[in-house]
Amino acid sequence: MLADLEKKYASFLSKRMEHRRMVKFWDDEVLGDDVIELTAGMPNEQFFPIKAIDMTIVNKPFESDHDTSKHMHARMSTYEPKSLPIARSFQYNEVEGLPQLRSFIRYLVNKINKPAYSEEDWEVLLSSGSCDSMFKFFECFCDESSTVLMEEFTFSPVISHVRATGAECIPLKMNLTKDPKTQGIDVDYLTDLLENWETGPYKKHNKPRVLYTICTGQNPTGVTIPVENRKKIYALAQKHDFLILEDDPYGYLSFPAYNSENPMKNDYLEENFTIEKYVNDFLVDSFLTIDTDARVVRMETFSKVFSPGLRLGFLVGNKFIINNLLEYAEITTRAPSGVSQAVLYSTLETLAEYQEGDNREDKAVVHEALFKGWMHWIMKVASEYTHRRNITLKAMYETEAYKKGYFTVVEPSAGMFVGVKVKWDHAPKKPENIPEEMKKLDRYLVKNGIKTVLGYRMGVCTEFSHDNSDFLRVTIAYARDDNQLVEASHRIGTGIEEFFKNM
Amino acid sequence: MLADLEKKYASFLSKRMEHRRMVKFWDDEVLGDDVIELTAGMPNEQFFPIKAIDMTIVNKPFESDHDTSKHMHARMSTYEPKSLPIARSFQYNEVEGLPQLRSFIRYLVNKINKPAYSEEDWEVLLSSGSCDSMFKFFECFCDESSTVLMEEFTFSPVISHVRATGAECIPLKMNLTKDPKTQGIDVDYLTDLLENWETGPYKKHNKPRVLYTICTGQNPTGVTIPVENRKKIYALAQKHDFLILEDDPYGYLSFPAYNSENPMKNDYLEENFTIEKYVNDFLVDSFLTIDTDARVVRMETFSKVFSPGLRLGFLVGNKFIINNLLEYAEITTRAPSGVSQAVLYSTLETLAEYQEGDNREDKAVVHEALFKGWMHWIMKVASEYTHRRNITLKAMYETEAYKKGYFTVVEPSAGMFVGVKVKWDHAPKKPENIPEEMKKLDRYLVKNGIKTVLGYRMGVCTEFSHDNSDFLRVTIAYARDDNQLVEASHRIGTGIEEFFKNM
Repeated sequence: MLADLEKKYASFLSKRMEHRRMVKFWDDEVLGDDVIELTAGMPNEQFFPIKAIDMTIVNKPFESDHDTSKHMHARMSTYEPKSLPIARSFQYNEVEGLPQLRSFIRYLVNKINKPAYSEEDWEVLLSSGSCDSMFKFFECFCDESSTVLMEEFTFSPVISHVRATGAECIPLKMNLTKDPKTQGIDVDYLTDLLENWETGPYKKHNKPRVLYTICTGQNPTGVTIPVENRKKIYALAQKHDFLILEDDPYGYLSFPAYNSENPMKNDYLEENFTIEKYVNDFLVDSFLTIDTDARVVRMETFSKVFSPGLRLGFLVGNKFIINNLLEYAEITTRAPSGVSQAVLYSTLETLAEYQEGDNREDKAVVHEALFKGWMHWIMKVASEYTHRRNITLKAMYETEAYKKGYFTVVEPSAGMFVGVKVKWDHAPKKPENIPEEMKKLDRYLVKNGIKTVLGYRMGVCTEFSHDNSDFLRVTIAYARDDNQLVEASHRIGTGIEEFFKNM
Repeated sequence: MLADLEKKYASFLSKRMEHRRMVKFWDDEVLGDDVIELTAGMPNEQFFPIKAIDMTIVNKPFESDHDTSKHMHARMSTYEPKSLPIARSFQYNEVEGLPQLRSFIRYLVNKINKPAYSEEDWEVLLSSGSCDSMFKFFECFCDESSTVLMEEFTFSPVISHVRATGAECIPLKMNLTKDPKTQGIDVDYLTDLLENWETGPYKKHNKPRVLYTICTGQNPTGVTIPVENRKKIYALAQKHDFLILEDDPYGYLSFPAYNSENPMKNDYLEENFTIEKYVNDFLVDSFLTIDTDARVVRMETFSKVFSPGLRLGFLVGNKFIINNLLEYAEITTRAPSGVSQAVLYSTLETLAEYQEGDNREDKAVVHEALFKGWMHWIMKVASEYTHRRNITLKAMYETEAYKKGYFTVVEPSAGMFVGVKVKWDHAPKKPENIPEEMKKLDRYLVKNGIKTVLGYRMGVCTEFSHDNSDFLRVTIAYARDDNQLVEASHRIGTGIEEFFKNM
């Protein structure tokens, strides 16, 4: 019930939210068909310069240009297809996103990450990508009195988003290990921090209202919080009454465990690999799936599985929270690009997999067909990323530097990032100032023709993370091809060797 | 000079701006070609599902479906055209907008509304439409200490935007007359208000820092502030040191004066009508053109001249202001949709008018060709709106109610809106409560099959605007065709007649 949700979560709203309410000049009177409405300031669709859009859609990522036989085609025109014609998508649109897309996304969430509370109490809201989502979330739920917990290394613009509201960012210790059972937020550290807040290092700040986490294929470390730890963290959220903001841009890019005996093994390419296997065995359960209280907000984006230039993402959360975010959207950005939504939805319709005899007027049938087509597409994307992960790890493990124990790899089980951690055991000395030393390493790497991101630069607090900041973030997403990844990995090895030699 | 601008305008920044700064983890090191960069978390373009987009572009609004011979075609693919391929536009993009589009927009501003100060000191910033622009502006420049002046009737979501920052909205008296020489903000009222602020009705509030105005084809009244009054208002801005935020979504939809002798006269259709005539004689000069101090920020949108679903607009202002807006964009929405930008830019390229022998490698030549094509398109849009204005006014003036003097028309010289003002001289009595009476009129209108917007609902302060709020906002933009506009106008007449009869 919305009223119950409000009672439970109204105190989480930022102080400024009371002024943030839409002043509307229109009423929602339902008029007869014979009434001419000269109300909305929107142009007739015949004023739009574009009459039709034809799209060529590939069967899989990196499909050869010559393989045109596999290409699919989509067409939108002023009044076709009825499901979403240009007259609709290029017009002023619903701030919450086009209903066609929004209801499909709801279906998607229900299939993959069904929240653990009543289906009537949660909702999805489209946004212009995850930065847009999180800025809105923090503005609605944080102010000068708020404290936000986050991984000690994080997508650092998030720090700006939090600070812009006047709130404080508190880093959480992370385990940067190879072992997937212990990766990510250090739960003992978090428990201790919360249990002893009043005597701890942050006692001057209020107890946290929000935990922000990139829990799968984390940026920049590549780690994934195991499900057991998610449950423990959720229990802490219940006990200490904070919201969890789960940012999951990378979750779909899920990898099987790296097999050092058979480095190029790629489960996605196996014949009996199914959507069910992908969803049940590969994708890590969202915090939503254990969210009995309705205190989790999940953010997804189409940037990694479709394209960043779409600027489309969405939030899932309880209706009270989503309603507030929607109201905030109304007085800030309004709707995401209708053109982007049309391009996305048209692609989903083109990828859709119908069975013979399917009733295409039945919404549930349409949603299931869209779901299958979309899952198969993102599994192909994930397969390509798995291949890239394999290539990269194999090449890194082949280097002399690795064999000599100069670095370890924080093996990712999802995403775009591989964390390369320097091991000081074999170094002439363990440095006193690790960030300074990492800057020197960067010079050796660039000299050897490889540029990565220095982990410490994505730290919330340099001092707090001093000992843990001896890693590089290596992106496998943009490289041109396998050879470039292999070459890059070798150069990283050589760079580290030279650096050690000259320490 | 940026430093001078900063000195002059830094005090205008909102208090919260000091916390609103981007935390970056990347450096801008320029690397050699042989360095492999595995830094940015962006997917290779071969991960995008869309390989090509073909667009069909019409020659003019309302072009017949059968008239395909006049249609134009545009094509984008992963690596073509070089000017803006999908690999670029569908990727993560510059927060300030794609450079191709941004530099064209700069050219456009320079041609039409050249600011009166040094070309080096102003800049343009793309946004996701004017709501996005204005929310950013108000967040950057307003807080609890700010007072914002605006027309007493306005696009009312603006009120929400201002209040969301904690600032106060102050309405300004408007002249809602037929006479284009006196339409819009009442300059005497404004002068008096500013000169006597400390003893006036708003003395409890700080003196205004911003004047927000929709100065051409105003929403909801349709009025345009004449150039002479713009100069007087600008002089007041200088004297009392406030910024002018000029919101101009409708300016391009410029009308010649309505000719009651020849109601259907449409100058756009005359043979010798040129871009020069349009720009010099039809478009009303922006406040930018008299802005010697760099205190004007202008907002434009592509919603009315292309399509609202693009969610694209831009701001023009001095570099200090634009830099702050850009920094704020970095920690909120980030870039506008690249897909929308691609669709827009590709259309501009298709409409471009090159001369024989033009060097298409020369940026200035390209800009001029884009400019001509774009101007010819929006002149066709403006021509269609002029036709609609003519049709509507003619039909309104034909009604019995008009002939009996029951209403006047606030003749617009631009835009989408016609203000219909009730005249009480012939009413049984002048009502004590005009908004209540207008609600009754609305019932008679709906009964007669016509729905408009009640002007008072777009007022900043009902009490302040009581006497002036006896008008309807009639939109000419969405109607299906001429007949619908004629029928709607007649119904307005009949509705007013019935209302008067039953008063």
